Amino acid sequence: MGEAVEIFLSNGLSCDDADLKLEESLKKCSWYEEVIDEDLKWSFALNSILHRGTSKYQDIALLDTKPFGKVLVIDGKMQSAEMDEFIYHECLIHPTLLIHPKYPRTVFIMGGGEGSAAREALKHQSIEKVVMCDIDQEVVDFCRRYLTANQEAFCDKKLHLVINDAKAELEGREEKFDVIVGDLADPVEGGPCYQLYTKSFYERVLKPKLNHNGIFVTQAGPAGVLTHKEVFSSIYNTLKHVFTHVLAYTAHVPSFADTWGWVMASDQPFTLDVKEIDSRIEERINGELLYLNGASLLASTAMNKTVYLSLLNETHVYTEEDARFIHGHGVAYRA
Amino acid sequence: MGEAVEIFLSNGLSCDDADLKLEESLKKCSWYEEVIDEDLKWSFALNSILHRGTSKYQDIALLDTKPFGKVLVIDGKMQSAEMDEFIYHECLIHPTLLIHPKYPRTVFIMGGGEGSAAREALKHQSIEKVVMCDIDQEVVDFCRRYLTANQEAFCDKKLHLVINDAKAELEGREEKFDVIVGDLADPVEGGPCYQLYTKSFYERVLKPKLNHNGIFVTQAGPAGVLTHKEVFSSIYNTLKHVFTHVLAYTAHVPSFADTWGWVMASDQPFTLDVKEIDSRIEERINGELLYLNGASLLASTAMNKTVYLSLLNETHVYTEEDARFIHGHGVAYRA
Amino acid sequence: MGEAVEIFLSNGLSCDDADLKLEESLKKCSWYEEVIDEDLKWSFALNSILHRGTSKYQDIALLDTKPFGKVLVIDGKMQSAEMDEFIYHECLIHPTLLIHPKYPRTVFIMGGGEGSAAREALKHQSIEKVVMCDIDQEVVDFCRRYLTANQEAFCDKKLHLVINDAKAELEGREEKFDVIVGDLADPVEGGPCYQLYTKSFYERVLKPKLNHNGIFVTQAGPAGVLTHKEVFSSIYNTLKHVFTHVLAYTAHVPSFADTWGWVMASDQPFTLDVKEIDSRIEERINGELLYLNGASLLASTAMNKTVYLSLLNETHVYTEEDARFIHGHGVAYRA
Amino acid sequence: MGEAVEIFLSNGLSCDDADLKLEESLKKCSWYEEVIDEDLKWSFALNSILHRGTSKYQDIALLDTKPFGKVLVIDGKMQSAEMDEFIYHECLIHPTLLIHPKYPRTVFIMGGGEGSAAREALKHQSIEKVVMCDIDQEVVDFCRRYLTANQEAFCDKKLHLVINDAKAELEGREEKFDVIVGDLADPVEGGPCYQLYTKSFYERVLKPKLNHNGIFVTQAGPAGVLTHKEVFSSIYNTLKHVFTHVLAYTAHVPSFADTWGWVMASDQPFTLDVKEIDSRIEERINGELLYLNGASLLASTAMNKTVYLSLLNETHVYTEEDARFIHGHGVAYRA
Repeated sequence: MGEAVEIFLSNGLSCDDADLKLEESLKKCSWYEEVIDEDLKWSFALNSILHRGTSKYQDIALLDTKPFGKVLVIDGKMQSAEMDEFIYHECLIHPTLLIHPKYPRTVFIMGGGEGSAAREALKHQSIEKVVMCDIDQEVVDFCRRYLTANQEAFCDKKLHLVINDAKAELEGREEKFDVIVGDLADPVEGGPCYQLYTKSFYERVLKPKLNHNGIFVTQAGPAGVLTHKEVFSSIYNTLKHVFTHVLAYTAHVPSFADTWGWVMASDQPFTLDVKEIDSRIEERINGELLYLNGASLLASTAMNKTVYLSLLNETHVYTEEDARFIHGHGVAYRA
Repeated sequence: MGEAVEIFLSNGLSCDDADLKLEESLKKCSWYEEVIDEDLKWSFALNSILHRGTSKYQDIALLDTKPFGKVLVIDGKMQSAEMDEFIYHECLIHPTLLIHPKYPRTVFIMGGGEGSAAREALKHQSIEKVVMCDIDQEVVDFCRRYLTANQEAFCDKKLHLVINDAKAELEGREEKFDVIVGDLADPVEGGPCYQLYTKSFYERVLKPKLNHNGIFVTQAGPAGVLTHKEVFSSIYNTLKHVFTHVLAYTAHVPSFADTWGWVMASDQPFTLDVKEIDSRIEERINGELLYLNGASLLASTAMNKTVYLSLLNETHVYTEEDARFIHGHGVAYRA
Repeated sequence: MGEAVEIFLSNGLSCDDADLKLEESLKKCSWYEEVIDEDLKWSFALNSILHRGTSKYQDIALLDTKPFGKVLVIDGKMQSAEMDEFIYHECLIHPTLLIHPKYPRTVFIMGGGEGSAAREALKHQSIEKVVMCDIDQEVVDFCRRYLTANQEAFCDKKLHLVINDAKAELEGREEKFDVIVGDLADPVEGGPCYQLYTKSFYERVLKPKLNHNGIFVTQAGPAGVLTHKEVFSSIYNTLKHVFTHVLAYTAHVPSFADTWGWVMASDQPFTLDVKEIDSRIEERINGELLYLNGASLLASTAMNKTVYLSLLNETHVYTEEDARFIHGHGVAYRA
Repeated sequence: MGEAVEIFLSNGLSCDDADLKLEESLKKCSWYEEVIDEDLKWSFALNSILHRGTSKYQDIALLDTKPFGKVLVIDGKMQSAEMDEFIYHECLIHPTLLIHPKYPRTVFIMGGGEGSAAREALKHQSIEKVVMCDIDQEVVDFCRRYLTANQEAFCDKKLHLVINDAKAELEGREEKFDVIVGDLADPVEGGPCYQLYTKSFYERVLKPKLNHNGIFVTQAGPAGVLTHKEVFSSIYNTLKHVFTHVLAYTAHVPSFADTWGWVMASDQPFTLDVKEIDSRIEERINGELLYLNGASLLASTAMNKTVYLSLLNETHVYTEEDARFIHGHGVAYRA
């Protein structure tokens, strides 16, 4: 602003620096506003609206925001942000692939149309095939075209992209997988993905498609001190009714304005050793991780006391008949 | 949304219409937010950010908004909106040109870099020359390039564009004008345009450049019931100390969230007759006006009782020494 | 903030004035936000939330805002603001009472539970009886209790308060009135007041209850350049099908962020003379008006060219069968 | 809303349920808006503004918000929220008191005027004396009066409340403490607390006041993946230059919209054993903790890879001469 001051003075006009400062603070005037909950909103200063699209089901936009970089928004809900999506996607993909006792070769991703989950899975040298099954062709096309960080993954020959309902696809396939990943919208009553979180789906459709030693992992919604009872504790408890070993873990994702949860489940016990995880990261993964290392992976499985007790005492199980209704969340379709 | 419902059902998922409706209402998520005053803000849903620029002095943006169409924003302050800028610019330009007893031939515009004031003046068949004197080359270039409604005007050979401080330019010129127009930012202490609203400027610099029968008109800031004392009444009163005849008039400009004021001043009396104005509009102006006709022009000069009394009783005169400080307004430079 | 600086210095801490200024500008942090339209919002800085209530139908709140003083909010829609409600209510009540050729004695107000319409009517010395018929007891009680400006009116023996549906009440009454006032929510399809704006209601229910020389006046929704086609032009046109003489007029109400419209209708012609109106104000009204005088009343009946043409060309008539749907407006019940 | 529908129907008016739903979603109209950073804001729906005060230095307010309960706001910055302040204050106080090898008896709190830090310290049975030294009498009075959760602590005879600058107070005292706690605003250049984070302050003023085995702990600002370099890594590194053993730990605080950081420092090594911590919690603390247990305390010391590397590689040291300037944060005075 130095020049501005000069010019004003050359006009014979004086100029109050404090006022310029004030003006500066008011200048950020284009905002993306997200309704996190009906009583909580948040707003990011916008640089520009990069792209807009519409699918049969949904509005899609790619916004360039000041605090979080490029942000993918589907039906008014932020899906992921350039500056911190690595937290969500590293946590979604790497723990199971690292904990898996053998070198995992095949992965099935339910949803994941953004391409980031596939991108992370393809970093594992042992991976031979990633099936990504998303229902929305236009979202996939939009992300393939505009999310430059995932373009290499979208072109990888190991990636098999299928446009279908994940349940129908799993039922129709004969093969089994080493790891199955749920990268779907939260299980909201009436939402598009509810069915893919029920005990019967896990038991009858999903589990039979896991190889021996196979692991299932799913995103499990907000897991903060104030929000973990919305769906996180129920997903955890539902999986405990289907698998012998279940492990919940969490991480704070800044652009979600919350701590997020994931749950992995298997009939084999999980072994986590900080050094072993660190050496497997070294050995198995091409390129560098930004969020996970052995210590933080282990720490992510330690719940604080409030969440610990909720997981311990949760009794709700997702069934087709007994949906737990979560107000105001989840119409957006992350699948 | 019918198709969405269909699809969800084909997935075996039920779908709550009311929730879709709710989601719909939350979907408008990119906003332009303007701080009108420090205790009053307003927000327009955004379609896109069309263009951005930076001048030596200012940030410039052209936004595509849902409620007001394309909107020009300079340093975080909205300057004009596609859907209602005609109100401001018709009121700024036509009343003086219509009331002028002879066919006015020359116009000098202080500021007006956006080009809309010039566009309106050039609609008068009698006009031979419009000098538009704005200080900011980049703002002028930006508007010439992107404001399609003004492109014809910017190319008109009758338009003489000068990049200079309006005071210096008027002082340096020898010619006189039939009409001089002030299309400048409000006279805020420390603001860039304060000097161009003072009694001494009017007396020594501006008035000598008016032809016999010449009329000066200036935008005069907000003129609403709650805001007319900020600058409107003082501008009116200051001009009463310099010219024999002074006439204030107002119009509500929706995108400004307020009634706006203008003041015209001359040493010749003004004659307003509804029918005469209507026939001069017919006769003198190429194309159609959208806001003004004889009746509304006359009505715009009738103040409500509160504003009437304030104009009557105002004692403040803008001088270089006695600036009236208006908090929180006007650092933006509309010139 | 001078003291703060001192103290900080006495602690050996330096203190950046510009930062304090910045902080100052961010300090206004409690806001009332109104969704004017789905793509337009506005926000007033809040001093406090004075009172809250709930009626059988509606949420009621009285907020103390910085820009507009105390503000009455019903179901999330601002109804009126201390600092400018006089504009709306003077325009609703006085023009008919002043234009009425005889000294009007009786007034029937449909809606008006806030009490301000009654307050204005009771200023006319000739008034002997004001019937105010509102459907919501709790809103009336809330306003009687908390809107101090109307407490005298609520206690006036000339005021007859009835809690009932306005249509049922008019149908059930035998007496006729000099003036009937519509102070109701806009005629939105599915809204509570739609029926009270239809041709058949005016013809069969309302008009028979007007005395000879009687005048009906109704608020008629937003009448700005961008909004007057929502309901204003249709109300005007509907009344033209029922009464011989119809007169539309408008005023900008700052806290409504728009110009507002009213329509009066009678089978007697209206005579407006500036001086006559001024002398009737003097003569008939106790106390001072703040907005209306003869000149501004007359000016308020002059439409700008855009609105003028819309009124002229409007063909829609409100009937029970052909409701005009106005999106996003009017579920709130101003009645 | 069932009743509303009934009533409308009894009026003969139909009523669109979807519209009511829409209206419902727009009804939350009073908001507290916090500017987290200049490009990031967040808004909580407000129930009411409970109390307002002004101290010599600062504005104070207690708001009742829907998402976070009662919220204390000082100079427009949220200080703590009823529903999750236990996370911040348990993490600030208990780790040092639990890790301390002997039963700690004395605590000195720099800042902490809200009273919550003292409340947590007083839960330890071994504590004999808590000195709380805050600079702002009015903030302390406001919190003592309105923060009901802390009223017992404010009345505790073990609490010694001093209104003074923390540095002056520590310098003037002769006694030493088992634990010193920094509950101050972030070390922003020009901010009120900068000096209390410098190497020389730690070395010359603070460390001499620690008993043998004594531990210092300070809040250390935001520690999220995107924000930990603002002050967290520098505070950590500065303390490494003053103490032999330094330990950073973090927790996500929902109402802060970020992960928060703390650093403890001592010349004795820290020993953390999950079982030992759990048994000390059992043994030493009156009442239940809500956030911390042995596992989560240990986990809170494991940084993710990004933050881990930043702490490892940080070279900045806070000195009086080399302030690190953090834009837009911290003028508010949490002390």
